[in-house]
Amino acid sequence: MGAVTSTMNYQQVLEQIAEEIARTPGRGRSADYIPALATRDPRAFGMAVAELDGTVHGVGEWREAFSAQSITKVFTLALDLAHEGDELWEHVGREPSGNPFNSLVQLEYENGIPRNPFINAGALVVTDRLHTRTGDAAGGLLRLLRAESGNPDLGFDLAVAGSEAARGDRNAALGHFMASYGNIDNPVPLLLDQYFRQCSVTASCADLALAATLLARHGVRADGTRLLTRSQAKQVNAVMLTCGTYDAAGEFAHRVGLPGKSGVGGGIIAVVPGRCALCVWSPGLDERGNSVAGVAALDLFTTLTGLSVF
Amino acid sequence: MGAVTSTMNYQQVLEQIAEEIARTPGRGRSADYIPALATRDPRAFGMAVAELDGTVHGVGEWREAFSAQSITKVFTLALDLAHEGDELWEHVGREPSGNPFNSLVQLEYENGIPRNPFINAGALVVTDRLHTRTGDAAGGLLRLLRAESGNPDLGFDLAVAGSEAARGDRNAALGHFMASYGNIDNPVPLLLDQYFRQCSVTASCADLALAATLLARHGVRADGTRLLTRSQAKQVNAVMLTCGTYDAAGEFAHRVGLPGKSGVGGGIIAVVPGRCALCVWSPGLDERGNSVAGVAALDLFTTLTGLSVF
Amino acid sequence: MGAVTSTMNYQQVLEQIAEEIARTPGRGRSADYIPALATRDPRAFGMAVAELDGTVHGVGEWREAFSAQSITKVFTLALDLAHEGDELWEHVGREPSGNPFNSLVQLEYENGIPRNPFINAGALVVTDRLHTRTGDAAGGLLRLLRAESGNPDLGFDLAVAGSEAARGDRNAALGHFMASYGNIDNPVPLLLDQYFRQCSVTASCADLALAATLLARHGVRADGTRLLTRSQAKQVNAVMLTCGTYDAAGEFAHRVGLPGKSGVGGGIIAVVPGRCALCVWSPGLDERGNSVAGVAALDLFTTLTGLSVF
Amino acid sequence: MGAVTSTMNYQQVLEQIAEEIARTPGRGRSADYIPALATRDPRAFGMAVAELDGTVHGVGEWREAFSAQSITKVFTLALDLAHEGDELWEHVGREPSGNPFNSLVQLEYENGIPRNPFINAGALVVTDRLHTRTGDAAGGLLRLLRAESGNPDLGFDLAVAGSEAARGDRNAALGHFMASYGNIDNPVPLLLDQYFRQCSVTASCADLALAATLLARHGVRADGTRLLTRSQAKQVNAVMLTCGTYDAAGEFAHRVGLPGKSGVGGGIIAVVPGRCALCVWSPGLDERGNSVAGVAALDLFTTLTGLSVF
Repeated sequence: MGAVTSTMNYQQVLEQIAEEIARTPGRGRSADYIPALATRDPRAFGMAVAELDGTVHGVGEWREAFSAQSITKVFTLALDLAHEGDELWEHVGREPSGNPFNSLVQLEYENGIPRNPFINAGALVVTDRLHTRTGDAAGGLLRLLRAESGNPDLGFDLAVAGSEAARGDRNAALGHFMASYGNIDNPVPLLLDQYFRQCSVTASCADLALAATLLARHGVRADGTRLLTRSQAKQVNAVMLTCGTYDAAGEFAHRVGLPGKSGVGGGIIAVVPGRCALCVWSPGLDERGNSVAGVAALDLFTTLTGLSVF
Repeated sequence: MGAVTSTMNYQQVLEQIAEEIARTPGRGRSADYIPALATRDPRAFGMAVAELDGTVHGVGEWREAFSAQSITKVFTLALDLAHEGDELWEHVGREPSGNPFNSLVQLEYENGIPRNPFINAGALVVTDRLHTRTGDAAGGLLRLLRAESGNPDLGFDLAVAGSEAARGDRNAALGHFMASYGNIDNPVPLLLDQYFRQCSVTASCADLALAATLLARHGVRADGTRLLTRSQAKQVNAVMLTCGTYDAAGEFAHRVGLPGKSGVGGGIIAVVPGRCALCVWSPGLDERGNSVAGVAALDLFTTLTGLSVF
Repeated sequence: MGAVTSTMNYQQVLEQIAEEIARTPGRGRSADYIPALATRDPRAFGMAVAELDGTVHGVGEWREAFSAQSITKVFTLALDLAHEGDELWEHVGREPSGNPFNSLVQLEYENGIPRNPFINAGALVVTDRLHTRTGDAAGGLLRLLRAESGNPDLGFDLAVAGSEAARGDRNAALGHFMASYGNIDNPVPLLLDQYFRQCSVTASCADLALAATLLARHGVRADGTRLLTRSQAKQVNAVMLTCGTYDAAGEFAHRVGLPGKSGVGGGIIAVVPGRCALCVWSPGLDERGNSVAGVAALDLFTTLTGLSVF
Repeated sequence: MGAVTSTMNYQQVLEQIAEEIARTPGRGRSADYIPALATRDPRAFGMAVAELDGTVHGVGEWREAFSAQSITKVFTLALDLAHEGDELWEHVGREPSGNPFNSLVQLEYENGIPRNPFINAGALVVTDRLHTRTGDAAGGLLRLLRAESGNPDLGFDLAVAGSEAARGDRNAALGHFMASYGNIDNPVPLLLDQYFRQCSVTASCADLALAATLLARHGVRADGTRLLTRSQAKQVNAVMLTCGTYDAAGEFAHRVGLPGKSGVGGGIIAVVPGRCALCVWSPGLDERGNSVAGVAALDLFTTLTGLSVF
C-alpha cells in the first residue's frame, strides 16, 4: 500500500471510474429468476466510498435502493460471530467451495457441514444459529443495517422475499439435507422464511458502504461500541476475500485484491481494512453471478488508488 | 495496517515467537513418504524475516537447509508469468480447489484445466509451459533462487528428486491425464523429471525469505530490475493467499492473513506486500500437509506486529 | 436353464434352504432408524415360492407380516408404467446408480433426473407421476397388492409411515431438489405422505411372492387380465436385476442371478420369468441394506434348482 | 423363455433381422479416434449365431474381420478367473459404474479399485493380474480365441495397437493412478502394451460368436474341457449383463435382456445361457459407444425368438 497518500480525493477517483465505466459497452444481464430483479436496467450504475468517520462520497445512482441479496450474508455472519464466537466454525467451514454457490455435492462429501458461510448452505446454517440464539435473525439484521447506515428507512421487500420463497425448492433441499445431518435446529420452513427476508433487504450504495465500515474499523460500530473482536473482524474479512464472490473468488482477489461480497441484485461491497469501505451497484451480471460493471469499477479503484491488500 | 510502526524490531519479535513456540507441546509429524523428509526432527524450528533492502533477521535454525518442495511453485509461477503473461491463465485457473492437492476429480470436471497453479496438476502445467519456453525450467528456477537469495550454493537434492520419481505414479497419472486433454506439451517422463528436480531444491529460511522479497517488492528483483509487472506480482500474491496452503487456505487466511505458500518439507514463506517477506521452517506437519509450528509462528507474527492484510 | 426338471419339488428345496440357513451363525443387524424395524429379531426367517397358478410353498415364518418398504417400489413402478408407458423414462433413467441409494450427487450431475426408479429419488418421481395420473398413488398400490396376493387384510402401518416422516429430511431434500429442476409435479409434503405410506405396507412372504408372480407371468394379473405389456414386464424385470439391491446389484446378479428387489424391512422378492416368484424375509441386514440370510437363501435356491437366468 | 421351440430356424430369423435393419435409415458414426476404425463404413452389417455344438448361422458380412476392441475383455476376464478365481474380486469390483467407461472420479472415491472388469481401469487390472500369472496376457488371449473360434488365422492388428498407444494418455493416467494405490503390479508401459495388443484382435462375427459359446456352455470349451466352473461362467455372464455396454447397460438389459459386451469397433457379442451365442457387427456407434444397428439387431432377435433372460 506504499503509493497511498493520506489525503486521497475519493470523489475524484469515483468520477474517473464512472466515466470509464460509461465508455464500456457490454454489461451482462440482470438476474431474471424473480420479477423484481429482472426489471432493473443492467446498465444502471452507482458507487460509494465511506470513510471510517462516516463521510460518504458517491457517483451515479449511489443513493438508489436495490436488492442487497447475498451482501447481507456478511452482516448475518458478523451478528452470529458476535453471539456465539468460534463455536460457529464447528458447523460451517472457512474454505472456498470450488463449486457453484448452491451445490449439494460438497455437502454430501462433508456430511452436512457447508464449506463456508457465503454459499447458500452456509448462510442457512448461520441464519439458523443466529435465529436460535436471538429468536429473530431477520429482525436483528435489519436493526444492525439501519444503525450502521444511519438510515432508519431500510426495510425488507416482502414481494422479493415472496418471489424467492415461491421458487425456493433448491434452498429447501439444502435445508432439509443439512437437517438430515443434524446441522439445522429450526424447522426448515421457518428457517427459509427468515433467510428470504434477510436476502430481500433493500438498500443503496451509500447505506451499504457505511454499514461495511464496521469491518474497515476492525469490528467497531458507528457509535463507537465494539461488535466484533479484532480477530473476528479479521475472520470476516478473510472469508470475504477467499469466498465472497461465488466461484470467482480467485479472480476477484487477482483483479481487485480486497475483501468483497457480491449479490445477485448487482451490488458488491468491498473493505479496505483501516481505511474505508465501498459499495458499487450495477444489475448486469456475468455468468458467475457477479456484477460486470461492479467488478470492473472495483478493479479500477484499486488500480487508481493502490488500495489493494496485495 | 494502522498499528504498524516504521521502526519495527523484527529480531525482538522473532525471539518472542521462538520462545512461545518452544513452550508448545504438540508439533505434528514429519512427512514420511520419502526417506530424506522422514528423518528430519519434527520439532526443529527456524524463522527469518527479510526486509526489502535485503536485511535479514533470524531465529533458531534459520540458516539450516531443508527441502523447499512446493514453496518452489511460487517462483516457477513467477518465471512463467514473466515469460508468457496472461496467456498462462487459459491453461490453469486461479480459483481455490476445494479438494486435496492432487485430486483428479476436479481435473475431470474441468476438462484437464487445473484449478490453480499450486495444486500438483497446476504446477505441472506451469512447469511444462516454462520448459517449452526456456528449454530448462528447473535450471531457470535454480538461477532465480540463487540470484534472489544471494546464495550461489543453492542446489537440487537429486536423492530427494529420485525418491519422488520412484513413487511418482500419482503425478504421472496427473500428467498423462492432462496430456489426454491436450494441456501438456512435453513428454510426461521429461516433465516429471523437471518437476521433481524443482521440488528438490534445498534452501534455508534466510534464502527463501530473501527470495520472497521479490513479491514484497511487487515484482522487482534484488538487483533492481523488474521481473514481474506490479499487476503480475499482485496476481502471484493473490494466488498465494487463496490457494497457498492446500485445503487449508481459508483457515490460513483467517489465522495469518498473509499471502503464503507451504511445502511438505515443513517450510512456509509469507509476504507482507511493501514491507517484508518471511520464511519459517519446522518439519512436523498437520493432516493437511502444513507445518504445525510454522502456521503458529506466522499467526503469532501477525498478532504481534499487526502486519496482516486484513 | 437346462438342468431344470418340470416337476420340481419346491417344498423340499425350501426346507433344505431353511436347514442350511439355521446353521449359519452371523445374520447382520436389523434396521434401527425407526422403532418398528429395530425391534424385529434379526434371526427371524421365512421364505415362500409362488407358482404361476397361485400355488404357494413356504418355510419358517412365511406367513408373518413384515414391513415391505422398498419392495413396494416394484409395484408402484408397474402401476405407473401401465398408466403412462414409456413417457416415464424421460423423467427417470434405467441405469444402475453406482452410488448409495439416496445420493444427491448423481441427481445434481444429471439435472434432477434420477438414474433409476429404485433409488429413493427415482421412486419419488414414480410416485409423483402415478399420483398425478390417479389422484391416489398409495391407495392404488394397496389395491393392487391386495388383489394379487388375494389377501384383503393387507394394509399400511401408519405408525411406520409416521416414524419415517418424522425423520424424512433426506427424502424431503430429494423431493425439493428435483422440484427445483421441474421434475416433481405435486407439493413435496403431499408427495412424501404418499411415499411413506407406500413404504409402510405390511405383508408376508406368501403375500409378496404371490404379488410378484405378476412379473413371472410377464405382466398378466392373477385374474388373467393384463396389467403390463410383455415388453413392460421385461423392463421391470431388467430394472430389478440391474438396480434392485441398492449398491450391491452386481454382486446380487453374480450370486443369485435373478431379478430381485430388497427392502430395509429385511424382505427380498425375486422373479424366475415364466416359472415362479419368491419372497424371503430375515430382518438382519448387511452394510448395504440387504437381508444377509435373504441373499444367502436366494443364492442357495438358484444353486439347488439351477433356476438362474445366467 | 416359454415361447422357444426346440427347432428354432436361426437362419430365417437372421435374414428377417437383416432385412429390417437394411430398411433403417440412421446408423450412427464410426469411431474416429484412430484411422483404422474411422475408415469403416458405418452402414456395414453382419450377424452370426453359434449353437452349442459349433454350428454357425450368418447373414450379411458375418465373415468380415473387424477390430474386436473391448469384446476381448470378456475373454481376458475368463482367463484370469480361471487362473486365480475369486481373489480377483478383491482387486476389481462387480458393480455397474454409473459413469462413463474411463472415468477417474470413481477410482479416486474407491481408492484405486475399479468398479468392474469392463471399464478401462478394470480391464487394465485384469490384464495386469493375468500377465503376472502367465507372463503373456495378450498371447494367452489370442490362443484362447483361436482355439474357441477354430480359426488359427486370428491375430493382432499392430497398426491398431500402435494407434491406440500413440493416443494412450488416458489409459496411462488410469494405470499410473491405480499403481499409486498399489493395485497394478507390472510397469505401466509394459501393461499398456499388453492391453492395446489385446484390444487390437481382429475377428469376424462367426469367430466371436463361436468363442462366446464358451459362456453359453457355462464354461466348457469347444474341445469339451472345462475352463471355468459353472459359478464362474455365471459370474462372467452376470457382469456382461450389468456392465457390458458402458453407461447403457440398463437400457441394453431393457431392450435386449441378454448378457452382452460391445466394442468401439462396432461389434457386440451376446449369450443365451444354455442355448447359443451371437455376434453382430456394424461400425456406426451411438453417443455411448455402442453399435446402433447392433443393438437394434439384438433387440429384434430377442423379440422374434423370445430368447431373453427376462
